[in-house]
Amino acid sequence: MKLPYDETDPVQVACAWTSIVEPGDPAAGILREILGEQEGLRWILDPNVAPLPDFGDRQIPWKRCHERWKLRVAELDVAGNLRRLELLGGRLLPRDASGWPTGLGDLEEKEPFGLWILGEGPVEWGSLPAVSIVGSRASTSYGARLASQFGTDLAQQGIAVVSGGAYGIDAAAHRGALTGADSAPTVAVLCGGLGNLYPAGNTELFQKIRQTGLLVSEVPPHWRPARWRFLERNRLIAALAPATVVVEAGERSGAIATANRALDLGRTVAAVPGPVTSAASRGCHRLIQDGAALVTGASDIVELLGLSPEDISDRAGSARRMGSASRAPSPGLRPVERLVWDALPKAGQTTVRQIAADAGLSSDEADVALLGLKLLGLVENNEREWSRASGDPHRTT
Amino acid sequence: MKLPYDETDPVQVACAWTSIVEPGDPAAGILREILGEQEGLRWILDPNVAPLPDFGDRQIPWKRCHERWKLRVAELDVAGNLRRLELLGGRLLPRDASGWPTGLGDLEEKEPFGLWILGEGPVEWGSLPAVSIVGSRASTSYGARLASQFGTDLAQQGIAVVSGGAYGIDAAAHRGALTGADSAPTVAVLCGGLGNLYPAGNTELFQKIRQTGLLVSEVPPHWRPARWRFLERNRLIAALAPATVVVEAGERSGAIATANRALDLGRTVAAVPGPVTSAASRGCHRLIQDGAALVTGASDIVELLGLSPEDISDRAGSARRMGSASRAPSPGLRPVERLVWDALPKAGQTTVRQIAADAGLSSDEADVALLGLKLLGLVENNEREWSRASGDPHRTT
Repeated sequence: MKLPYDETDPVQVACAWTSIVEPGDPAAGILREILGEQEGLRWILDPNVAPLPDFGDRQIPWKRCHERWKLRVAELDVAGNLRRLELLGGRLLPRDASGWPTGLGDLEEKEPFGLWILGEGPVEWGSLPAVSIVGSRASTSYGARLASQFGTDLAQQGIAVVSGGAYGIDAAAHRGALTGADSAPTVAVLCGGLGNLYPAGNTELFQKIRQTGLLVSEVPPHWRPARWRFLERNRLIAALAPATVVVEAGERSGAIATANRALDLGRTVAAVPGPVTSAASRGCHRLIQDGAALVTGASDIVELLGLSPEDISDRAGSARRMGSASRAPSPGLRPVERLVWDALPKAGQTTVRQIAADAGLSSDEADVALLGLKLLGLVENNEREWSRASGDPHRTT
Repeated sequence: MKLPYDETDPVQVACAWTSIVEPGDPAAGILREILGEQEGLRWILDPNVAPLPDFGDRQIPWKRCHERWKLRVAELDVAGNLRRLELLGGRLLPRDASGWPTGLGDLEEKEPFGLWILGEGPVEWGSLPAVSIVGSRASTSYGARLASQFGTDLAQQGIAVVSGGAYGIDAAAHRGALTGADSAPTVAVLCGGLGNLYPAGNTELFQKIRQTGLLVSEVPPHWRPARWRFLERNRLIAALAPATVVVEAGERSGAIATANRALDLGRTVAAVPGPVTSAASRGCHRLIQDGAALVTGASDIVELLGLSPEDISDRAGSARRMGSASRAPSPGLRPVERLVWDALPKAGQTTVRQIAADAGLSSDEADVALLGLKLLGLVENNEREWSRASGDPHRTT
């Protein structure tokens, strides 16, 4: 069988798995666990190549599973997906590669096959002290203020903040964490692919997160943030930190689902109380009644996790050092972006055609790189010409 | 020894104990436990009458204890205190008499020797389902609204509300409970004596409580609500109900002290959350973190107590029947008050002198009784004449 990917390249293998299998498909996880990463994938591509071994008491409807996988196999385009990623300036982290977040293993057969990542946060982000902050999209000003304060206080203590990308509590937590981003990254775990950042209203926030933190997804860049994927996305948020804090949530809320996932994983679950007259705090109160810890501020979380301030700064410091080393000498730019950046005049404007010529690239390549740099806030343009952005932090590099 | 009270009258004995011993004096409790009610009291009056038996490992500094008791012995005036009570229209319930609240026995050596009681609530109030509601004097409008709602909802379900007599949460809980007073009484446990209702700003509230509920104290009517007695008063609030709910409390608050007493007694302790930004909720949040139940409304309490609505209405109903029977034919009036009431014309006004003549009482006696009836809202007066109040519920009795 001619494979549509290079089996010796873990990135291509991870790309194939995540391009075929829906997030959280446990049958695929079991298949990989038993046949192995490469053999399992080969069976998905052609189940006739090898009979499945006896899986004992795990009764999986393999025929039905294969029916759903084979549609994706037919349109599998590993090179295309990786090309999309490259154009975005992202990277694909295969499962178990160096930097793979330690907590994801607890998901067992639902552990993702790879993470599609965009951003300048430290490569060791997955082993930093971390807290997941979740809550309603429809937050109150009380909840948003608190989420932001939690984000800031945790980040400033060197604790990474993990959340989704939604309006409300998610966005507030990231915004707060960004003010402490010197000490720890903020991590947005997204439901859609990195080329489909959702919601569009948070685009500016995603750009900021990308500069010092991380945007993380388990699906290829062009996949949509489909509704049914949110529940599985939640399991990543729950698994990526030893504690999940619900800041505000109605009684039936995605945040409660995330908290329940965290409980299933043996994580600490905490909730912030609010007025009993506020529907937005009702889910939090229910969680506390059901055994979640009541927290009123970041210090309560730090205490819950049993982390002393020294622990945190030690671990965060070493992660920062690792992160910085990995990014040097080009602070976060992909090679093509770096070429384009260097081709831009230090002052004044120029055309794409000129940039492409100076950088030795095609106009299309230069165009994509410029869009990537714009997403980073590094360049500006009018209808015809491009320039380095005024006042950007990378200007002197 | 000539005793300054009638040893065969439990009310006089209880009056003597409570007139000599400070609330919560554990040495007195142990003395009574070992020597008995009458013998113990005789020893306090004259420790030379009998040597104390060997108390084993309970090392009590009896000599020092007697030093503090003997000052009160010197001024003991059982008849005077009972006369004061009678003028107020109250009654003194000796420990272990019929109607003695079942929960107080858990206080062991700190169980009161008697309760001075004023009010028309059912005589079996102490065995009704009950919840204690406590909280800060300096409540917010949020806390006051909630306390009132808890009071109403509990009372309407036939659950007696127990609290103190302070401004803030106490008063709000009583006010709320009074709106459901048809179903269950509200009970104010006071620090001072019944002739020293405190604070004066709650006088109107105390009058209302008295009409359908109960004012309860463990000290003689003329004793002051001294600061050091509040802590011991709290133990009664904690003991009188199987659950204590803290609605709002700062971190160091008398309400927290009451909650801790309740915990010591093995009672259920619950707290109402609020905004983490509110100092008035900080004590509540701390309690929940320390294991108290989070409650958002009366239904949470009912569930905590494991009471089904049927249980409550059965028990409350039978208590109401008992209560009504005990009060008939004179609904809550002392004999002197009843005489004066009957002497008042059904319509129109008359003088104290005329009332006294009709009732066969001295003018002073009639005067005191009229003041008692006024406190109940049953009579009105101008400078010279008295009449039955318009629109009072007792008018047709």
